[in-house]
Amino acid sequence: MQDELVRARAAAHIANRLQPAAKDRALLAMGEHIHLAADAILEANARDLERAQAAGEATHRVDRLRLNESRIAAMIEGLHQVRALSDPVGEVISSWSQQSGLRMQQIRVPFGVIGVIYEARPNVTVDTAGLTVKTGNAVVLRGGKEAFETNRALTAALRSGLEEAELPPDLVIMLTDTDRRSVDALIRARTFVDLVIPRGGAGLIQHVVEHATVPVIETGVGNCHVYVDAQANLEMALDIVINAKTQRPSVCNAAETLLVHAAVADAFLPKAMRQLAARGVELRLDERSLAIVRRDAPDLVHGGVASPPIDVATEQDYATEFLALILAVKVVQSLDEAILHVGQYGTGHSEAIVTEDDQAAHDFLTRVDAAAVYHNASTRFTDGFEFGFGAEIGISTQKLHARGPMGLRELTSYKYIIRGTGQIRS
Amino acid sequence: MQDELVRARAAAHIANRLQPAAKDRALLAMGEHIHLAADAILEANARDLERAQAAGEATHRVDRLRLNESRIAAMIEGLHQVRALSDPVGEVISSWSQQSGLRMQQIRVPFGVIGVIYEARPNVTVDTAGLTVKTGNAVVLRGGKEAFETNRALTAALRSGLEEAELPPDLVIMLTDTDRRSVDALIRARTFVDLVIPRGGAGLIQHVVEHATVPVIETGVGNCHVYVDAQANLEMALDIVINAKTQRPSVCNAAETLLVHAAVADAFLPKAMRQLAARGVELRLDERSLAIVRRDAPDLVHGGVASPPIDVATEQDYATEFLALILAVKVVQSLDEAILHVGQYGTGHSEAIVTEDDQAAHDFLTRVDAAAVYHNASTRFTDGFEFGFGAEIGISTQKLHARGPMGLRELTSYKYIIRGTGQIRS
Repeated sequence: MQDELVRARAAAHIANRLQPAAKDRALLAMGEHIHLAADAILEANARDLERAQAAGEATHRVDRLRLNESRIAAMIEGLHQVRALSDPVGEVISSWSQQSGLRMQQIRVPFGVIGVIYEARPNVTVDTAGLTVKTGNAVVLRGGKEAFETNRALTAALRSGLEEAELPPDLVIMLTDTDRRSVDALIRARTFVDLVIPRGGAGLIQHVVEHATVPVIETGVGNCHVYVDAQANLEMALDIVINAKTQRPSVCNAAETLLVHAAVADAFLPKAMRQLAARGVELRLDERSLAIVRRDAPDLVHGGVASPPIDVATEQDYATEFLALILAVKVVQSLDEAILHVGQYGTGHSEAIVTEDDQAAHDFLTRVDAAAVYHNASTRFTDGFEFGFGAEIGISTQKLHARGPMGLRELTSYKYIIRGTGQIRS
Repeated sequence: MQDELVRARAAAHIANRLQPAAKDRALLAMGEHIHLAADAILEANARDLERAQAAGEATHRVDRLRLNESRIAAMIEGLHQVRALSDPVGEVISSWSQQSGLRMQQIRVPFGVIGVIYEARPNVTVDTAGLTVKTGNAVVLRGGKEAFETNRALTAALRSGLEEAELPPDLVIMLTDTDRRSVDALIRARTFVDLVIPRGGAGLIQHVVEHATVPVIETGVGNCHVYVDAQANLEMALDIVINAKTQRPSVCNAAETLLVHAAVADAFLPKAMRQLAARGVELRLDERSLAIVRRDAPDLVHGGVASPPIDVATEQDYATEFLALILAVKVVQSLDEAILHVGQYGTGHSEAIVTEDDQAAHDFLTRVDAAAVYHNASTRFTDGFEFGFGAEIGISTQKLHARGPMGLRELTSYKYIIRGTGQIRS
């Protein structure tokens, strides 16, 4: 791997100085070369799919791996969209003069070499390369072994595009060693790699955080809550809970736990539970919400075979990112109890309060420590595109450097440039 | 330690919501209580000094540990200076509305709990507590065992000040367990600690980076260069080199290597080497600079017993942060060679070019990848106070989150607050 990292570093030194137009030409060429290589990419993908099916992979994992013409077109369109965004590199973040006459500038610069470690979805290969080329970074990609052939074909096309645009192809390097040791070597290559971004499940992210010596941005684990306050508009609350839980349950900004203030539990829970169950949501209820449902919606508890199961919520349920049509529910006595619950079980991703009480909203928004805190809106909006960033490389759940959706700006660092006329320190 | 971290987290939850005036009152009271406790602090310091001397510690280490009335007054003055700065918490970094009607705000917030690991100097205890209280963070201090008694007395005074100002004293917690295991527990306490800043020697920083799972900001290792270009004003270059090397050689922004373009080596080196040697600087010369000195300043090489030694520079010399009156010297053939040398041996701290050639300056400033790059000024200016930040918790040599001098703003993160009227994602 040493050799690949040396080449990435050399490419980054060149990318550091590129004008926006040169990078935009490369993005265009990268898209064209993916288009030209579409057949080869689909053939490579067919081999990956065959291997995955032969290995008995779960259907949803095979589906995430599958490319077709429209998915390839979407990747190319993604490159065009990134190209159209403005280049953050070179931006003067601040500038000032010191009494000594020194002129100071804080300027946005690329990181250098970014390592990205991800799992099955091959579109990450193209999306990531687009974002890193746009920001003048070199990227070392370490994708999952399920998508190995697909990623290799995609990377070859991206590199051809870079070559055509007369940029170093080593701006996009794919590691072809797919065992775990290559991950470990990448995340400990402090001389060669400036930043590692793991994108994937909790296990991958935990492994990277545990073993990295290169600086890491943790992404994506979202145990998100919707809190329905005593002063909530209950119709709005119902819409928000249904959206946050069911609109796309497999993603990190979907809600996993519903907290309901005791004052509105009787009025809210029976109808809400019925509508969620009707959408196939398995419910994990605390004793109080279970009692309410038993009393006011007994058919749900003793429902026919078609009803999804209802269980008593365990401690573990509140701590789990289900990423599925499962919702934990808890009745709380106060806004304070809701905030404490979120503090105890939340992962600092996205948290929402539904209320008409401005003071309660203010308290929740201020005290809850998460990347995105919502008043009267669904947690599902935490996303680079929904935030208007035009692109996204992930959603940070740490507080260092970037928090929440990360777009182009978050793929840059800065440096201070100081111009003098011979100043020395006295 | 668990108990101390739980208390720090609880205090951080309260500090998160404090108004600037409450924090400023606390800073005032912290200073008053250090003043009130001055005798006890000096007695504790005397015990530390006695122990250090009995243990045969080097004189400069004992000196760094020593407090006296004027050093205590300087600590108090430091708290006043931080108090006078404006509070970055709550600043709206950006705000916008989405087409959906969602109103977005990106707001500066405290990190939460910050762990600071440091070595002998007890003023770090007070400086750090001032900065973290000002920014609404709780701090867990893990100082060196040499300063144990002094730090304990200082922390007690700081906590009394917090109590008097009716803030949680647990905003400043000192770990009283001084073995290495307490460092390791602190840097792996992901649930309780949001950020760790190691301040100290390369060994400490290396250990923290190697073993931390909490996000880290690396500070302070500075292998800094001054490059004297072919088009340099040689008088200016001499002033800058002498300042960067000798004004305070023990600090991270002092220069360790001088690079001289071959075109001016004959004109520059004899005089420069003579003046540096006269200031007690040991020289480590490459073959070309040694030949020039042998020819044009032979008395330096065969000098009397009073002259500091001159040696042939080794690979290791170029890689070393001497932190002492030692300078490695190399003649380079080109600007390119200078930039490559800095890229190979530099630690990304502070790098300077001396030249009247604007294109050369531009190339150096653009291509050298360091926190601070200087044109015609000494590297010694890389410092929070010299940058006008009014305070400093360290100088970051990584690119994630903060680069270069870190003041109050760098001790904050941000969150997104999103206000809606029932928006759901379609």
